[in-house]
Amino acid sequence: MARNIGLDDGIDVAERIRVEAAELFHHRGYGSTTIRDIAEAVGISSSTMYHHYRNKQDVLFAISRQFMADFNAALLAVLRDGARPPGDRLGDAIRLHLTISNDRRTELLTILGNRVALSPAQLTTIVGMQRSYQGAVRDVVGALHGPDVAPGDSDLVTMALLDLVNGVCQWFDPSGPLSIDEVADRYTRMADSLVAGPSRAR
Amino acid sequence: MARNIGLDDGIDVAERIRVEAAELFHHRGYGSTTIRDIAEAVGISSSTMYHHYRNKQDVLFAISRQFMADFNAALLAVLRDGARPPGDRLGDAIRLHLTISNDRRTELLTILGNRVALSPAQLTTIVGMQRSYQGAVRDVVGALHGPDVAPGDSDLVTMALLDLVNGVCQWFDPSGPLSIDEVADRYTRMADSLVAGPSRAR
Repeated sequence: MARNIGLDDGIDVAERIRVEAAELFHHRGYGSTTIRDIAEAVGISSSTMYHHYRNKQDVLFAISRQFMADFNAALLAVLRDGARPPGDRLGDAIRLHLTISNDRRTELLTILGNRVALSPAQLTTIVGMQRSYQGAVRDVVGALHGPDVAPGDSDLVTMALLDLVNGVCQWFDPSGPLSIDEVADRYTRMADSLVAGPSRAR
Repeated sequence: MARNIGLDDGIDVAERIRVEAAELFHHRGYGSTTIRDIAEAVGISSSTMYHHYRNKQDVLFAISRQFMADFNAALLAVLRDGARPPGDRLGDAIRLHLTISNDRRTELLTILGNRVALSPAQLTTIVGMQRSYQGAVRDVVGALHGPDVAPGDSDLVTMALLDLVNGVCQWFDPSGPLSIDEVADRYTRMADSLVAGPSRAR
């Protein structure tokens, strides 16, 4: 059984709350998990819990914001590295997107499955973070396309690429025939063919 | 104001309940819509409403099942038409998938956003219908690939294709620069390049 943790542990406790809550939300369901369940899983009192988060919705928002902050920090560094060719940046970004999504699958599925439970203001924050990532992918696709593609084509390819890589966390099975690295090999090649497709301006 | 409808109208009433309920679930939220709201929108009494559906969850399930039944009837006819080359069948299926998803966007987004509200047995039924479609796409991809592709590659390309076309309903804007037909033109070419990608057996 977990030892009791006091207020002193500070940030570390907030992180453990997010990790345990994501597990509970994912396996038991957001609606079926109480603040008390989370506190018990972490090994803290309800009052310590309320010191960190006001309510269950705040915990869900914290999980979502932390995931997107970590994800964007890693991905934007790759996508915006102007010293490297855009094709290399896109390939590395796709691999990193798939790796992070797989490593933190419980958090990600919790976030994707419970967007409706966030407040409008919270959702606006998360969508804004997603748009930053989307914009960085769009810039790299635009650099690869150059000025001669049909209007709207770089936007369309960007959405297609994001739908492609975002979908993997819903069906990838770590015990299946392919490793996440092998999926990433195949998906970076798919991305190349989507970007290079017949998209010249008419 | 809608005229009052009695029990006599039969199937037509059940369909109107599904249509009005999908609108309410989509715009107001599933959790914020009551059986009474739905009855009022259709112009029937609550008792007539209960004659057709036992509760709100049953209405959501009926919306999901009817959509998937119509979708599969249309798509499986195209995908399994053995008289036509598999490449033509896949292209037509992608166009039809995007067209139906756009025409019935309110229902589709209601279904996608509220899967957690279905009972386990209801969800099993819907997932089974989705798997039938997935299997038919997989068969066509397998026919296009032939026996020489790397193990698991036809499965991977199938999931990629489905994620690609399923994503469109979340971001497509009918008032945007491209029509759904233009998106379909581009997506059928993308599908060709995904299927034709470097997937020979190693």
